[in-house]
Formats: sequence, C-alpha cells, structure tokens
Amino acid sequence: MKKIIKNGTIVTAADMYKADVLIKGEKIISIGKDFDENDAEIIDAEGKYIFPGGIDPHTHLEMPFGGTVSKDDFETGTIAAAFGGTTTLIDFCLTDKGKPLQNAIDTWHAKSKDKAVIDYSFHLMIGEINDEVLRQLPQVIENEGITSFKVFMAYKNVFQADDETLFRTLVAAKELGALVMVHAENGDVIEYLTEKALAEGKTDPIYHALTRPPELEGEATGRAAKLTGLADSQLYVVHVSCSEAVKQIAEARSKGLNVWGETCPQYLVLDQSYLERPNFEGAKYVWSPPLREKWNQEVLWNALKSGELQTLGSDQCSFDFKGQKELGLGDFTKIPNGGPIIEDRVSILFSEGVEKGRITLNQFVDIMSTRSAKLFGLYPQKGTIAAGSDADVVIFDPDAERVISAENHHMAADYNPFEGMKVKGEAVSVLSRGEFVIKDKEFVGKLGKGKYIKRARYGTQLSREERENLQPSKS
Amino acid sequence: MKKIIKNGTIVTAADMYKADVLIKGEKIISIGKDFDENDAEIIDAEGKYIFPGGIDPHTHLEMPFGGTVSKDDFETGTIAAAFGGTTTLIDFCLTDKGKPLQNAIDTWHAKSKDKAVIDYSFHLMIGEINDEVLRQLPQVIENEGITSFKVFMAYKNVFQADDETLFRTLVAAKELGALVMVHAENGDVIEYLTEKALAEGKTDPIYHALTRPPELEGEATGRAAKLTGLADSQLYVVHVSCSEAVKQIAEARSKGLNVWGETCPQYLVLDQSYLERPNFEGAKYVWSPPLREKWNQEVLWNALKSGELQTLGSDQCSFDFKGQKELGLGDFTKIPNGGPIIEDRVSILFSEGVEKGRITLNQFVDIMSTRSAKLFGLYPQKGTIAAGSDADVVIFDPDAERVISAENHHMAADYNPFEGMKVKGEAVSVLSRGEFVIKDKEFVGKLGKGKYIKRARYGTQLSREERENLQPSKS
Amino acid sequence: MKKIIKNGTIVTAADMYKADVLIKGEKIISIGKDFDENDAEIIDAEGKYIFPGGIDPHTHLEMPFGGTVSKDDFETGTIAAAFGGTTTLIDFCLTDKGKPLQNAIDTWHAKSKDKAVIDYSFHLMIGEINDEVLRQLPQVIENEGITSFKVFMAYKNVFQADDETLFRTLVAAKELGALVMVHAENGDVIEYLTEKALAEGKTDPIYHALTRPPELEGEATGRAAKLTGLADSQLYVVHVSCSEAVKQIAEARSKGLNVWGETCPQYLVLDQSYLERPNFEGAKYVWSPPLREKWNQEVLWNALKSGELQTLGSDQCSFDFKGQKELGLGDFTKIPNGGPIIEDRVSILFSEGVEKGRITLNQFVDIMSTRSAKLFGLYPQKGTIAAGSDADVVIFDPDAERVISAENHHMAADYNPFEGMKVKGEAVSVLSRGEFVIKDKEFVGKLGKGKYIKRARYGTQLSREERENLQPSKS
Amino acid sequence: MKKIIKNGTIVTAADMYKADVLIKGEKIISIGKDFDENDAEIIDAEGKYIFPGGIDPHTHLEMPFGGTVSKDDFETGTIAAAFGGTTTLIDFCLTDKGKPLQNAIDTWHAKSKDKAVIDYSFHLMIGEINDEVLRQLPQVIENEGITSFKVFMAYKNVFQADDETLFRTLVAAKELGALVMVHAENGDVIEYLTEKALAEGKTDPIYHALTRPPELEGEATGRAAKLTGLADSQLYVVHVSCSEAVKQIAEARSKGLNVWGETCPQYLVLDQSYLERPNFEGAKYVWSPPLREKWNQEVLWNALKSGELQTLGSDQCSFDFKGQKELGLGDFTKIPNGGPIIEDRVSILFSEGVEKGRITLNQFVDIMSTRSAKLFGLYPQKGTIAAGSDADVVIFDPDAERVISAENHHMAADYNPFEGMKVKGEAVSVLSRGEFVIKDKEFVGKLGKGKYIKRARYGTQLSREERENLQPSKS
Repeated sequence: MKKIIKNGTIVTAADMYKADVLIKGEKIISIGKDFDENDAEIIDAEGKYIFPGGIDPHTHLEMPFGGTVSKDDFETGTIAAAFGGTTTLIDFCLTDKGKPLQNAIDTWHAKSKDKAVIDYSFHLMIGEINDEVLRQLPQVIENEGITSFKVFMAYKNVFQADDETLFRTLVAAKELGALVMVHAENGDVIEYLTEKALAEGKTDPIYHALTRPPELEGEATGRAAKLTGLADSQLYVVHVSCSEAVKQIAEARSKGLNVWGETCPQYLVLDQSYLERPNFEGAKYVWSPPLREKWNQEVLWNALKSGELQTLGSDQCSFDFKGQKELGLGDFTKIPNGGPIIEDRVSILFSEGVEKGRITLNQFVDIMSTRSAKLFGLYPQKGTIAAGSDADVVIFDPDAERVISAENHHMAADYNPFEGMKVKGEAVSVLSRGEFVIKDKEFVGKLGKGKYIKRARYGTQLSREERENLQPSKS
Repeated sequence: MKKIIKNGTIVTAADMYKADVLIKGEKIISIGKDFDENDAEIIDAEGKYIFPGGIDPHTHLEMPFGGTVSKDDFETGTIAAAFGGTTTLIDFCLTDKGKPLQNAIDTWHAKSKDKAVIDYSFHLMIGEINDEVLRQLPQVIENEGITSFKVFMAYKNVFQADDETLFRTLVAAKELGALVMVHAENGDVIEYLTEKALAEGKTDPIYHALTRPPELEGEATGRAAKLTGLADSQLYVVHVSCSEAVKQIAEARSKGLNVWGETCPQYLVLDQSYLERPNFEGAKYVWSPPLREKWNQEVLWNALKSGELQTLGSDQCSFDFKGQKELGLGDFTKIPNGGPIIEDRVSILFSEGVEKGRITLNQFVDIMSTRSAKLFGLYPQKGTIAAGSDADVVIFDPDAERVISAENHHMAADYNPFEGMKVKGEAVSVLSRGEFVIKDKEFVGKLGKGKYIKRARYGTQLSREERENLQPSKS
Repeated sequence: MKKIIKNGTIVTAADMYKADVLIKGEKIISIGKDFDENDAEIIDAEGKYIFPGGIDPHTHLEMPFGGTVSKDDFETGTIAAAFGGTTTLIDFCLTDKGKPLQNAIDTWHAKSKDKAVIDYSFHLMIGEINDEVLRQLPQVIENEGITSFKVFMAYKNVFQADDETLFRTLVAAKELGALVMVHAENGDVIEYLTEKALAEGKTDPIYHALTRPPELEGEATGRAAKLTGLADSQLYVVHVSCSEAVKQIAEARSKGLNVWGETCPQYLVLDQSYLERPNFEGAKYVWSPPLREKWNQEVLWNALKSGELQTLGSDQCSFDFKGQKELGLGDFTKIPNGGPIIEDRVSILFSEGVEKGRITLNQFVDIMSTRSAKLFGLYPQKGTIAAGSDADVVIFDPDAERVISAENHHMAADYNPFEGMKVKGEAVSVLSRGEFVIKDKEFVGKLGKGKYIKRARYGTQLSREERENLQPSKS
Repeated sequence: MKKIIKNGTIVTAADMYKADVLIKGEKIISIGKDFDENDAEIIDAEGKYIFPGGIDPHTHLEMPFGGTVSKDDFETGTIAAAFGGTTTLIDFCLTDKGKPLQNAIDTWHAKSKDKAVIDYSFHLMIGEINDEVLRQLPQVIENEGITSFKVFMAYKNVFQADDETLFRTLVAAKELGALVMVHAENGDVIEYLTEKALAEGKTDPIYHALTRPPELEGEATGRAAKLTGLADSQLYVVHVSCSEAVKQIAEARSKGLNVWGETCPQYLVLDQSYLERPNFEGAKYVWSPPLREKWNQEVLWNALKSGELQTLGSDQCSFDFKGQKELGLGDFTKIPNGGPIIEDRVSILFSEGVEKGRITLNQFVDIMSTRSAKLFGLYPQKGTIAAGSDADVVIFDPDAERVISAENHHMAADYNPFEGMKVKGEAVSVLSRGEFVIKDKEFVGKLGKGKYIKRARYGTQLSREERENLQPSKS
C-alpha cells in the first residue's frame, strides 16, 4: 500500500538531488527523508537514478498502413515501452474523411482496452476541415480529452491536407486550446519524384530516401511554422530529421512563435547509408521522413542541447521484415514505413545523449518525459517526480550495459534497427501509478491495467482529479 | 526550529504543484503532505507561490567607479535584494593589474562581512593574463570557490582587455572549470566616438547612448562567442541589451556552443528615449551598454521565451542623482554608469513576463534563480525548492499590486529608474537558510547573517557539505 | 537612312563613356568618333545620357480580369511605354486549362498586331501540366520563341497551380531551356483570410492588404526557390514586394541557385497606408501582392543595390477608377488588381534610384533593360548600346524635372498612382529599331510598327538573324 | 599607328558581341564595322575573345617579408602578368610607423620605374592614425592618386592595427573618398595559437593553417564590415578564403553597406591538404589566410556567381622554395607567406569558372578586370573595351589548352603552386595602351614602358586626361 524508494538520486527536468520518495496508492505523497517506514515496502535505489516515467508522444500501434497492420499492438507495444522506461504513450487515431471523428476514436479505444499495461492517450488526425468537423472538435476535447490534432503535409491522395486545411486547423486549435501536429514534407513533389524513380526502374529501398530529400522537409516545416505565426497558434512538428527543418523551427522560435519540434532516436543514431544495405535489408530502415546523411545527427543533438528541439518520440510503427517489409520488394513505395523503436527510445537518449555529454541529465528527463507531459496536457499528473503526481517512476541504473537485439527485445517485430548497438544505462524497475510493471527487469504488470488519460487543453494544467471530471468518455 | 509552509503552490524551473514544505534548521527536509506539525511553526501560503529565492548573478555593491563609489553597499544592497525576493547575489571583485588577485578578494570580503543579510559570492575580474596570473587562478578556485572570471571588451585604458587576454582566459577557464563572463562592447570604437562627440560639444546624457551603438555590442558579442567556440570553452555574456547581441548568442548556441546570455530588467522595460529626459534626468538612465530603441524589448523577451537568453541580472550599481550622477553635468562621459535595480529585478520579471504571458512560471523561476545557480556552481544548495537544498524561499503573492517608487524602496539611491511603474506580484515573506529575512513585508533579518558561498566548478554540482570542504578561505 | 547621335554619354549595364553612335537602318553599326557625317541625320545629345531602350518584362495589356478588361491595350500601352523610355515589353498570354496553348498565343497575337508602336514578346501562363501540355511546350518554344512560363501560386480556383504542377514546370523548363516565373503568394491561406474578412464585414480596400500578409509571400517565394534548387532549374520571381521574399531569394542565390527577382516601382515608392485613403481611393492602390509597410522600401532598394533583386517590371494592368476599380465597392475582392505603371517605370527608377544615390547608373540600365534582355532571351538584339544591336535607344535628360499626373500621362487609365510625385530625369527622344517613336517629347511613331520578337532559350544568346530563323509563327 | 582588331567577339562586364575594334595610338577610337583599313595594322581575332586587359588589384612585388624579399619584382612580375592577360596591377606600399608616408611611396616608385612592362598603381598601408598621418593623407590622394588604404587586422606586433585605427581610417576614407582595404584575420588569437603550437613542437607547414582557423577570418571580416557600416564608409576585404568570411560580407551587403570582397585563385582551386605534402613541400602553399578545407571552394564560386564577392586578386608575393620557403624548416612561422600567382590568375578564372559553367563570360570580365577598375578609380581608362578607353586588350583563345608548370612560366619563383593543372583558354596577344606586349604568345614589350597610374577617388570616374591633371607626382 505504501512504498518508499530510498537512497536514489531523483532527477527531474530541472533538479537533481538525493532524497527518498514516499508513494501511497497510485501517487507520490512526499519527497524528502525520515519517512515512517512502518507498513512500507522499501525499495532500495542506491546508485540509481529516479526518473519520471517516460512519455512517448508518438506511436502507431496496430495501425493499418499500406495493406498491412503495424505489428506491435497495445499489448506488445506497451509491454516493450515499459521495459524501456516509458509509462505513458500517445497514439494516433486515424480518421476517415466524411465519417464522424468519434468513430475513429471508438476504434482506437477498442484496440487499446484490456491490452495496455501502461497509461495512454490519443491524438486525432485531421484530414479535412468543414463545418461538420468544426462542430465535432469541441466535443472531442470535452468528452475525450483529446487536445492535439495531426495534419499531414505528405502522403498525397492518402492523408495529405492542403494548406487551407492546415491553416483552418491552426485557427481552430487556437480557439479551442489544442496543439496542431504536422508531418512536414512536401507531398506534391514527393509524388512526382516517386513516380519518376519508379518509371526509371529505381525500385530499391534507397530510393525511398532519395525521393524524399531534406529540402522538402525543410520547406514544409518552414511553411507550417509561418502559417502558425500568422494564425498566432501553436505547432508541434513531429519526427524532425534534418538540419533544414531544425533551422526553420529555430527561426520561428526566435521570433517568439509557439513552435515545437520532436525528433526520434533513429534520426539521432542511424543514417541514410543504412537504406543501401544489401538483400533488401535497407527496407528495415524505411521511415518518412527518411534517415538522412550522417552529419545531420550532430545538428539534431545540438538542437536538443540548445532547446531548438524539445521532445523525442519513437514514431513506433513496427513491421516484420519477413512478410511485411517484404511487400516492397521490387517497389520501394510499397515498403511499410516505420520500425520498432518504442523500447529503446529512452535508453538511446541516455546512452548517446547524457553519457556522451551532449545533453544534461535534466534535459534528458525533459526531452523523454516532462516536455511532452506539458505540451500534451498530461502534466503534472505525468511527467515529473513531485508530490501529488502519479507514481510513474523509473529506477534507472546508469552503469548497466546491454546490447540491443531483436533476440531479446520485447517488441513483436522480427528485427531491431539498432541491432548490435551497445547502450549504457537501463531501466531496472518501472512503476505505473504506484504498481510495478517492471521489477528487476522482469515484467510483472497486467494487461488492461493501463488507463486511457484525458488531457488538458494546450497551455493549461489539470490535476488528475480535474482531468477525470471532464465529460465521460463514450468508450 | 521546524517550519512547515502549507497550502502554497510550489514552483520550480520545471514543476508547479501544491504541496507543503518542511524545513528543519537551514534546509528543506521534505516536500509533500501530512507532515507532523508538532513543534513546527506553521506558515500559511494559501493562494501564494513558493519560489526558490532569487539569485542575482550581477551586482556591484560599494564599487569605486569614476571617482565615486556606488551608493548601495552590502548592507542596503542585500536588504533591498531580500525585499525583492532575492536571497543570493554574486558581486564582482575588481582587480588591479600587477597586484595579487587575493588582494582584491580580500578587499571584497572586507566590504561584505558583517553587513550582508543574505548569502553572496564573488566573480573575479581578469584584466591581464600572464604566468603570474595563471599561477594564482587555481588557488582562487580552490581556496575561494570563485569559478567565474570577468573580462571587459570595453572601457579602453581602464578595464579593457585585448582579444589575446580574452582568449587566454577562455583557454584557462576550460582547463580549470570556470565560466568566463564578458562585458561585450567594442571599446576601441566607443573611445573614438566618445572623443568625437565631446569635441563636437555633444555632452548631454543621450550621447552616452549614441556613442555606444548596438552594432558595437553585437560585434563584440559575436567575437567573444566565436573565440569561445575556438577555445571549446564556456562563455556568459552579461547585460545583453539588443537584438544584434541576441542574434550572435543564438547563432553560437545553435552550433552547440556553451554560450549563455544575461539580460537586465532595465533593457526589458526602459528604452533609449529615457536618456533624452530634460534637466539632466537622462543621467539616471545611463548604463553600459545603454538603453536601446524600444523595439529591442520584444526581441529580448522572445529570447527569454525561446531560451536564447537564460538569466536576468540587475547589474546593480547605484548612484544618487544628486551629487553622483551630477558629476557628468556638461560631460556625459563623467556620469557614473549604473542604477538601483536589485530590489525590483524579480518583480518586473514576474509582472511583465509571467503576468503578460511572455514567459511561463517555470521559465520565470529558471531565469531569476535556478539557471544562475547552475551556471555559477551554487546548485543544488541554492536555486530550487527541493529536499536537501537551503531553505532560501520566497512566498510570493501573485495578486499584490504596487507602484515602484524611490519613496518607499529600500535601496540607498535617491531615485528609482522604474519610478511610477505598476507591478503585479510581490514577495510577501522571504527566508534565507530557514530564517525569515522578510516577514509579511517587514525586514526581520540581521546584518552579517548572510554568508559567503564558495562555488562549484562550471558544469559540476556540489552539495553544501562538499562545498564547505573546499580549502578554507583566507578571509 | 543613317543617323549619328553625337556628344552624348553612353551608359550600359557596365560602361559609361562619351562617344558617338552610328545607326544604319534598324541597327547600331559603330560606336566611337570621327564618323563620316555625309548623308547622316545628326542628333545632338550633348548633356544627355544614351541608354538602351527600357525592357518591361511584365505587362498585362487588354487582359480580362474579374469581369472586366485592363484598360490599356497594345496601342495606348505601347505608346505610354515609349514615352517613358521603354522600347520592348513582354506580355502574359493567359491560357485556359484543357485548351491548346496555341489558342492563347493566337489570341494575344490578335490583340497586339497592328497596334504596338514598340517591339514586344509573350510569356506563357502554365495552369496545368499533363502529357498534352508537355507535348506542346517544345513547339511553343520552336515556333513562337516563347521561352518563359508563368505559374501562379495564388488566386485559388482561378489561376493557382499546385506544387506538383510548379515542380513539373521547373523540370520541363530545365530540359527545354525556359525560365519559370512565379507569382509567389500562398493562395490557400489568402482564400481563408479573405473569406473570413468578408464574413466579418471587412470590405474596404485596406483588407486587400491585410488578407495577403507578407509572410505568405515570403513563404511561397521560399517554397518556389527550394523546389527550383531541387529541380536544378531556373526561377524568376515576379513583383517582389517585401523583406520576407527578398530574404528567401537572397538565401537561394547564396547557394548558387539560378533564382532571380523582379520588383516594381509601386513597391519602391508607395506603401500600405495608401490603401486606407478615404472615399474608396484606396482601391487605386490594389495590387497583388499588396503594397507593404513603408520600411520594406529600403529593403527592396538595398536588394537592387546588392544584386539580390535584378529587374524592375511594371506589372502594368490598368483599370479606370471610375467604373472598373469601383466594381469592388463594398467588396474588396472585386477590385480589379493592378494599375497604370508602364509609363513611369524608368523615370522612377532613375529619379529615386540614381539621383538619390541608391544605385549606380550602370545598375539602373541593367535593372530597367539589360538584365531582362538576358534573362528572357532578347540579348544582344535588345538591352544594350553596342555595335550590331537593334537601335533601340533612349536619349535621356538627367536634369529635366516633371510631376507625374494623370492629366498628362499617355496611359488610358483615368488616374495615376504616383499622382503629384516629382521626378528628375526624362526620356527626351526614343528610337525603336532606328526610327524615332518619341522625338523631343512628341509621339512620332506608327501603330503596328512594333514587331513580335521571338526569344532565345534561357542562358543562350541569339543574334537577330538567328532568332528570325526560328520556325515561322502562325500569326 | 592605327590598328584594327577584326572578327573577334568582344566581351565586357555586360556585353558580348562580334565587332571590330579600331585603335589609334594608345586608345580605342571606335567599335563597330566597316572601318577604313588604309594604313591600319589588321589583327585577325576570328574565333577569339577580345577582353579588356586584366587588372590585378593585389600584388606584392619585390616586397621585404620576414627577412627576405619576394622574388618577383616589377620586371619579372609585370612580364608574367602580361603573359597571363593582365595589363594593370596595383601593388602595396608598406609604410613605417613614424615616417612620412611619401617615403614609402618613393621607395615603391623606385622599385617600379624602368622595370614595369604594363601599367601599375599603388595602394598605401596604414599602420597608425594620428594627426600627422591625417595631415598627409589628402596629399597622398592629390599628388599620387592613391585612393585606397590598407589596414591589417593580423600580424600582431608587425603590421597589425587596432580597431580604433581601423575605424579612424574608415572615417578618414569616407571624408577623402578612399577605399579601405583590410586583411581580416584576428591577429591576437593567431598569436596565441602560434606560440602554443610552437611550444608543443608543432612546426610543420600544416600548422600554419591550423593556427589560423577560418573562424578568425570570419570574425575579423564581420568586425570590419560592422565598423564600416557604423562609419558609413566603404570597405574592400582582400583575399577572402572561406565560407565564414563570405557570409559576413553577404550579410553586410544585404543591408546596403558598401562592402566588397576579393578572393584569389589559390582559394578557388587549392585546399588545406596541400600543406600536408611531405618533404616540406607544404611550405609552397603557405598563404595568410591559409588554404581552407575543400568544401569552401564551392562557397567561393557561388559567391562570385551571386555577386557576394566581386574581384579576384593574385596576392602575388612569390618566394623560391629553395632558400626562401626553406627559411621555415623547423618553424612554420618563418615560412615566407605567399606564392607566384600573377601569371595564372586570369587563366584559372576562365578555365575553372567560365568553362565549367560556374560564372558567365561577363562575370569573368567583371571579376578579373572591370570591377577592380571601378573600385580603385581606374575606370574608364582601364577595365573595359570601349571607345575612349586605353587600348589595353587581350586577345584570348578559348580553345587553347595548356598545363601550368614552373618549367615554362615567366615568374621568377622556382615553383608553381598549380603545377600540372590543365587549363583551357589562353591569352594569345596582349596590348597595353595600343602596343603589343605579348604577340602570338611571345613577349614583345619593353622594360619601363609601363606607367604609374593615378587613380580617381572612390565612387568617381576620371578620364585619362583628368587623371593626369592631378598634381604632379614627386617621383
């Protein structure tokens, strides 16, 4: 009933200090020392860091894509997340034009219920804006606590919205208190380059990268940022992969605009040359935006350091190499985009970021957890180690070393893009709302214990209680 | 002996939540709820914010300048600081070329001892670099815990160091773990422009501004930043006043350089037109760098928001208008530079920053306290509300309103540059190491209770105990 | 048969020197001195400049727009042009989707034939790109010598092309040796802002400007430039009006891209406040892009000086205030866009540019004539004073002063946007292919003497003879 | 007495056309056709370009440096220049502090008289500014026609001037109508880095480059540009070698400042790796600023293309490898800086620039001749092919191919830094003031025929006659 984590070093987005953490039920009650240890389960964290549970702001679990479905669902996906030190994720509801938004949300509730072992929430894709959609948005916020809308500037004729839709979404988001997320690539030009490549018989995975050059991400990012400024709204650019895009975000932020940027582990440590691996192995490394030339990695790290980028998402969207990625044999456009990342997101940021001196420990916590909690209305319930917050806690051994491998990862996909990479630092135990999900590197959680979390409006903070007083969800 | 601050909203550089603060002796012991209230002094903070005490990283108390001495000393200066919500300040030891550095430090210890009502520390000015100086620097760090060195690029023939000195200081600082601070203005050109203005009979205060144009601050800032990159060292640019300088800092940070920037309240809310006030009143507004055209204010606020600038110093260096500022009647170069700011630094940042929506509450705390604590080696003893930290606490009423005026300020100077300005938000009570200095807006502190604080090396964290185990100070 | 212009100062895009010009028939034969004066008409140009005839790269004569037709046709338009020192213009053929391109060209030949008093050529608008259009483009170049294609990024649902069309046009242009011209404004967002303004009852002319903010021009300009880089093609941005757009062009050029920019006299000397003139007078100043805040003028002049912008077009598209501009009473979106500029283009550049020391005389000639000749394949037949070139010559009195007014201008429109403006410098006499069109400020030309000029491919030079050996035009 | 160059293609900074050039005495009389060929020497230029003679704005002939003297003097230097297509050069008079400026000028007159085979002029170095110097400057301009002053920001304790001197020079230059030239590198930091390298035993030629990193050139260039803006004066940055410096110049020009930049052939085609050549061969490639990493070459070419840089100097300052460069064996700081470039400057620009499509033919002429003529007050006497100009003419075969080699070059130095490089395009015949200096690749000139040229003030144009009416030179 009562737990005390002793002797660890607590690290938040701003602080680092040694103190004990007193947990009662689902919440952190106090932080300090000399707590009454009667009836308490004592957890020794000597030599360990105590981090707030990671928040993955960008996942696609069990998502239909290109005639198949992403391999990890809310069961394997959330278990793997927990192993990696993530205790909350936000998945994307894909909507269909012309159909009620609630349909999509209900579908996603159905996917996740009784499966998730950690808490979760949903973003909502906006494919079109018309009076009917505008009528539904306030309800989505009120009833579902969904306060972030995703617009695609790419995937022409599939998800792509035009600039008018993007702008109307920005205007609506400002009025409603929501955050607009964009996939920023110029889909029109990609369409042309892709057709041309195929027509020229260029079908290998590398052409996925070559037909989506960084200029097109930079262009779309700058466009979205400028429209955001004009609408005086707020924007979150997902999966920033390259220098061109970073520059646009930095420029917008310099002007005081509310523009935020997320990158992903794959862009920080992998590069375009992976797509050239023989025997179609390049297909394992197909993301959109694609992996970039290696020099971009330093730009991304510097952007995390200087604050030009703020968060790290996994963009988890895994497919087996066998049977799924292979759909693209002979036609790179048929390779399902994405990979299994959710489990290693936190580790890689720690090992490559903190251990290598690129970011501080506080920045690490902010990037992998706190900032997402704040941007997406989860804070202070989630995203920090503080009295009153959910006891979503990671006990982390900074000295542990491991080698990433599909052989022992917990994701369903049959390969791991970081295969063979050595990382330092590992989540030893993970608590979700006061209960162990991972204990001494063993899964001890339960399917369905993860709860759907309604989120506060952009720029506001709700306590857990206030959050739960939002209108009841339909699902 | 034991105090509990109840019902307040704790705000740190990252967090905001309601909880109680348990203080024993000089330190915060625990944060949470349900603390044993026996033997405890209960302080009700309902409706109030609980901030870490402000840290003013830039003061000149009782400093000789231009034939006079700055009016506020460690007595009036620290009392006024406390009223304003500041519990630690770092003052500048001015050194003389050719003399032992310790002499200057001893002089400053003598000025401050038995006077300060809050804690304080010292930066050290570097006027020359030679073998003798290089030999002394490690001792200054070891014995005095002085881990920040100031170099002037302006004040030709007085404080100004050449680029070789600046560069050698950067190289030494990197090796020793110190932070180099610069006053960034091109003193050579200012010298010429000043002589020319005087020769042309241009003697009014406004010519102080016109002979120190922003291009010269931008130039010197960029120069210092580039040298820092080359030395792979760390730089802190004091009193950034204008767009040109912000741009240079932002560019350096984008490249991943360890370059930091401080601005001051005067640059955020006053502007160059003040120097044109009649009857020599313009002299009240003479700082170096000078106040700038008004549009720069928005640039500075945006830089604080986006993180391009990180701290707020007062550059406190007050002079009476009567008798002191008047030294410059008929010759603007004789106007002592500086003003009384230390008391209103925190208020103005809150009122103009948080209340007007330009920065968040967390940013406010970071800017006025936490970031300086970290940069200057005071953290975690100072700069946060966390278990184990010194109980330097500000209980702040966000709804209080007051009008700034020399009539009721606590600084010794006979005018206030913000005279008549309405501010919202006020420190109600202030604790320094667990004892009230200000209680319900009354001074209840004691002269000499403020202690000299040795500081950790740049990039490191020392607990209070570790800090005190540095070599004993000579003074 | 033979003419000698004596004693003048010849100015080209690079040179300035005193020499005589010997003309035989339609061409300049020699430049120098001591020419045989037998049988020669001697023209004294003492104290005068001898410029190559101006080239206006951007006109819309007798163009249908918004239910009306632009007032000046190839008769009044070319006469007015000649008075102003322009001897060649390039007008835009508007095409209809789905119809043969030649139809549009034939329509324009019909408009111009038997009317023009100076030489002219056509650009071709590209509204769509498909196999059929791609098949026709080589013929348009071969048969008509039309080597520049215009794409609109604005005017949604009217002229606007999507990014795929723009990109395909860039790719085609590179292959074919043509120059792509863009109207760069984000039409999608303008559409929204316009609808919103009208819905809010904002119908006055000023809302034309407020619904087309400079960010949208900057955005579209940057987008077009980036796509040009990706296509390794060439781009000419028409009517650049603001700092945001200049910056994008400069950045592209810094990278070595073939991106060129044109501005117009109205953006150099008028500003947004004109749209607020009472009694609907603001409608006289409605262009797209709109007039901007006054500070942009300095940016544009600096861009001409530094070479970031290269040409000056009139964007001539005149409408009477009475009856035509008035169509927009009560609805700014119905105000026909454009104004009468063609006559004063050269004067304003000279008076405001050269006389005020913003550009050199050589730059003046380059901007108003030579650069357009080179970019659009007219050089060396047009655009310079050199042996072998057409004798399109302006004899210009730099000391003449006049006041611009609709009362004595030669355009058909009933107002002049520069009404009352004093300019220094005036074309005294103008020759087109060796014949006077204007002589001592009197029109002495003949309708229909102006010829249609076929143009060379981008980046190539054709002599007049080579040009005429292109396939015969249908018209 | 009379010459006619027939059938060639004349290329100027703006024009390209076929015409004949009629020369009488020292001047071009007419350009055109049908000239009376009686008594004329006919020169057939069929298939050739006719360029204005090259102007090398940056040479150091017979200059004392580091205990030796540059190898090529006004005899071998001007002969080699002529072979390469250069017909005018401007050399630097080095002054001594405290001595009359005229002394230095007289020394240079003595060096050049009776030796030069082409025309020449002088820049004047400014090492200090005081009342005495300021008194002499107007005389230097009046008597000597020296209208460009050079300031060194590098070579500490030798040539280096401080910022006050630079600024005073800029102010004086503005008043007097002169152009300030800077060697822009931060000499203070170079001093430190150099001492440190030597102290660490790093004595090889490559350390010359490593102790003068590009950041220091960028920094100094930006500094000089900003001071120029503040002084509202004019600046010419010599030997720009790197991206960092280009960026600063471009930024200044964007703001409308009168800032100009020169690069050199060595920076366009050689790179830092040359300094690592074994057997001390790296010493052959020691310039200040040093050769840079190869990627800078593209930046420099793009800067020439876009107009961010405007001229090409040789920075000719040649030393034998044997005996001279070898002075630096075991201590890179003793390697005399510079190399033999004057002969191949024009060829390399043509071959690498025009032939490879990086710049146009007009740009080539502007860069290698016209722009320098204009900036340095030689135009229109020099720098163009126009009636009235000196008949300094290069007949250039664009199809000739040759391999650069010390074996057949005409410079005195015993090596050529471009050894083995193939270039396309070669000067076949060269005329200086109407007389052949080079005829069909043979030297036919005469020592001492080259004349000293007085130059017009910055921004003004003098005819040859006006120029000669300046006060008589002392020498």
